[in-house]
Amino acid sequence: MSHIEAVQKWLAANNYQVGYISGPKNIQYFTNFYSDPVERVLALFVFPDKDPFLFAPALEVEAIKDTGWKYPVYGYLDHEDPFAIIAAKIRNRITAPKRWALEKGNLNVSRYEELNKLFPQAEFTGDLTPFIQKEQLLKTADEIKKLEIAGKWADFAFQVGFDSLQKTRTEQDVVAEIEYALKKKGITHTSFDTIVQSGTNAAEPHGFPKTDYINENALVLFDLGVIYQGYISDASRTVAFGEVNAKAKDIYDVCLEAQLTAQAAAKPGMIAEDLDKIARDIITKAGYGEYFIHRLGHGMGQSEHEFPSIMAGNKMELQPGMCFSIEPGIYIPGVAGVRIEDCVHITADGCLPFTHTPKELQVIPIR
Amino acid sequence: MSHIEAVQKWLAANNYQVGYISGPKNIQYFTNFYSDPVERVLALFVFPDKDPFLFAPALEVEAIKDTGWKYPVYGYLDHEDPFAIIAAKIRNRITAPKRWALEKGNLNVSRYEELNKLFPQAEFTGDLTPFIQKEQLLKTADEIKKLEIAGKWADFAFQVGFDSLQKTRTEQDVVAEIEYALKKKGITHTSFDTIVQSGTNAAEPHGFPKTDYINENALVLFDLGVIYQGYISDASRTVAFGEVNAKAKDIYDVCLEAQLTAQAAAKPGMIAEDLDKIARDIITKAGYGEYFIHRLGHGMGQSEHEFPSIMAGNKMELQPGMCFSIEPGIYIPGVAGVRIEDCVHITADGCLPFTHTPKELQVIPIR
Repeated sequence: MSHIEAVQKWLAANNYQVGYISGPKNIQYFTNFYSDPVERVLALFVFPDKDPFLFAPALEVEAIKDTGWKYPVYGYLDHEDPFAIIAAKIRNRITAPKRWALEKGNLNVSRYEELNKLFPQAEFTGDLTPFIQKEQLLKTADEIKKLEIAGKWADFAFQVGFDSLQKTRTEQDVVAEIEYALKKKGITHTSFDTIVQSGTNAAEPHGFPKTDYINENALVLFDLGVIYQGYISDASRTVAFGEVNAKAKDIYDVCLEAQLTAQAAAKPGMIAEDLDKIARDIITKAGYGEYFIHRLGHGMGQSEHEFPSIMAGNKMELQPGMCFSIEPGIYIPGVAGVRIEDCVHITADGCLPFTHTPKELQVIPIR
Repeated sequence: MSHIEAVQKWLAANNYQVGYISGPKNIQYFTNFYSDPVERVLALFVFPDKDPFLFAPALEVEAIKDTGWKYPVYGYLDHEDPFAIIAAKIRNRITAPKRWALEKGNLNVSRYEELNKLFPQAEFTGDLTPFIQKEQLLKTADEIKKLEIAGKWADFAFQVGFDSLQKTRTEQDVVAEIEYALKKKGITHTSFDTIVQSGTNAAEPHGFPKTDYINENALVLFDLGVIYQGYISDASRTVAFGEVNAKAKDIYDVCLEAQLTAQAAAKPGMIAEDLDKIARDIITKAGYGEYFIHRLGHGMGQSEHEFPSIMAGNKMELQPGMCFSIEPGIYIPGVAGVRIEDCVHITADGCLPFTHTPKELQVIPIR
């Protein structure tokens, strides 16, 4: 069953007449076409017993046809009213659709109110967001293959990054070296802004690389990933640039133990929040609990924001095919920051990582 | 009056008790803090006669304080329910807020329904989106300064790109050279994915650079920009790599005439759609009207998706301080594509561009 057929089946089973998919990444999942339309409208409409159609800015139509999309695609010009055209195309198929399912996590209120105005008799009670999240939860062998290749490129990027550490380079310079090397190899997109943070800058877990020189005799945190055929990698390594002090080593050792222990424990049947607890307990017991201020991990696949979330409160049971990060972090303001992360997929009896760069503390000599 | 005070005044004038700003770029506009929280919640709440507050993931709180935000900021941990905390913080200030204004263009339906559940007596009739768009419409002298600097970096990037054209390089290689040179200069973000398209690939106006070698004796289209202190540049140039045929030259000349004529005509008092028509008429008269399939321009500032839109149907009158692109394009499938673009700001009696790379056809010798 194709992804589209799964939506059609779900719509039929729940007695919805129209399904409206609006998230660009999800449109890619169902159509193989990706574009971020920003303020323009890109929309996929699915019906339980009719062909779906794509609606897109006119300047995307050729690219959509090139992807092999076999159903209708309708373009609109910038000065046209997209929702007036959408309404007409839908009414051509169903005169007065009453029961709709929307992708509520990816549709803004302005457009929702516009639909309410155009279809005043309709009920927009259905939510495609949880259905799509569930569809994407267990990755197929083909998806795992793409995630593995994306992981190999992350390993490549780490090596470039480690090799690029020089005391005359800034954090941004090292980012530039990594992304240049990837682009020259044909990897056009990173999954997110490449992070290289050294010394106390690494203590800001959502900070960014600066134009200051790489700190010497300090930990340097790398968090990076690429997009390969629509699938991402996401991994973190922390290395020492020169000799680091005992405190930094201790933080590193605790974080590494938490990471390795959690990764060794992840397997089918385990509850997501229990996995978080395994890592968190190690860090808490070592006295750093207050500095581990995010969940252990997030689901991933086409983006780094899928299910399952590995955190307190999530009672979801791990199953083969689930993919997520295991990324404990310890961030002590003014001191240092460490994060060690692999994304893994659950197998029949454990888990396998997508990245293989060694996790023991690497010491890069100052040069 | 600060940006926040302007919101407070608008809320008071319209009798709203709570204003909820949710778009990351708009939160930056009002707070100087930027982060894309993706699926986490980053929110700015403003009240007509009380201090505003920021609500953010715990791991962003330190960075927010670093920006100098002087009002409260509340963090939440991944396993906590963000909207439960938000509701409590709001009720601490107003027991039962009834009249709300939301940023409807930047709030998803899931969160909207959550608010409806938490505040069942409330009316969410106010829309901050048009108010914010209007606030951002006329740029201040300080904003123009930043846009000018962002423009200078786009000119730098064009030069790197033109200098990088070699027959043994792919389109992606040239992108890599441009972005590497920018990053090495400390420019960390482009406004959008840098576009380098040669030959027939340039006929897809929303296509992307490929890993094929730059076509020889063909037009090469560059569309690029950077972010400088939160403000963007966005410009396009098309150059010849080697000698191009008469057809390509003709398309170029028509597009250039349309661009120069429109840019010379833009001034206060002109209607946005009339400016589009000036350029469109030139292209249509030359027989290429059907290949100019987007509006003449878009507003810009913190993003390339602000007002005013320069297109048929927009009766907005141009005023000093408005900033937008003038970017006619001609895309003939299987033949070639040309786009020539400067972003400009309207002055007292005309307009001035942010980018200054020559627009006459440059011929880069094949090497």
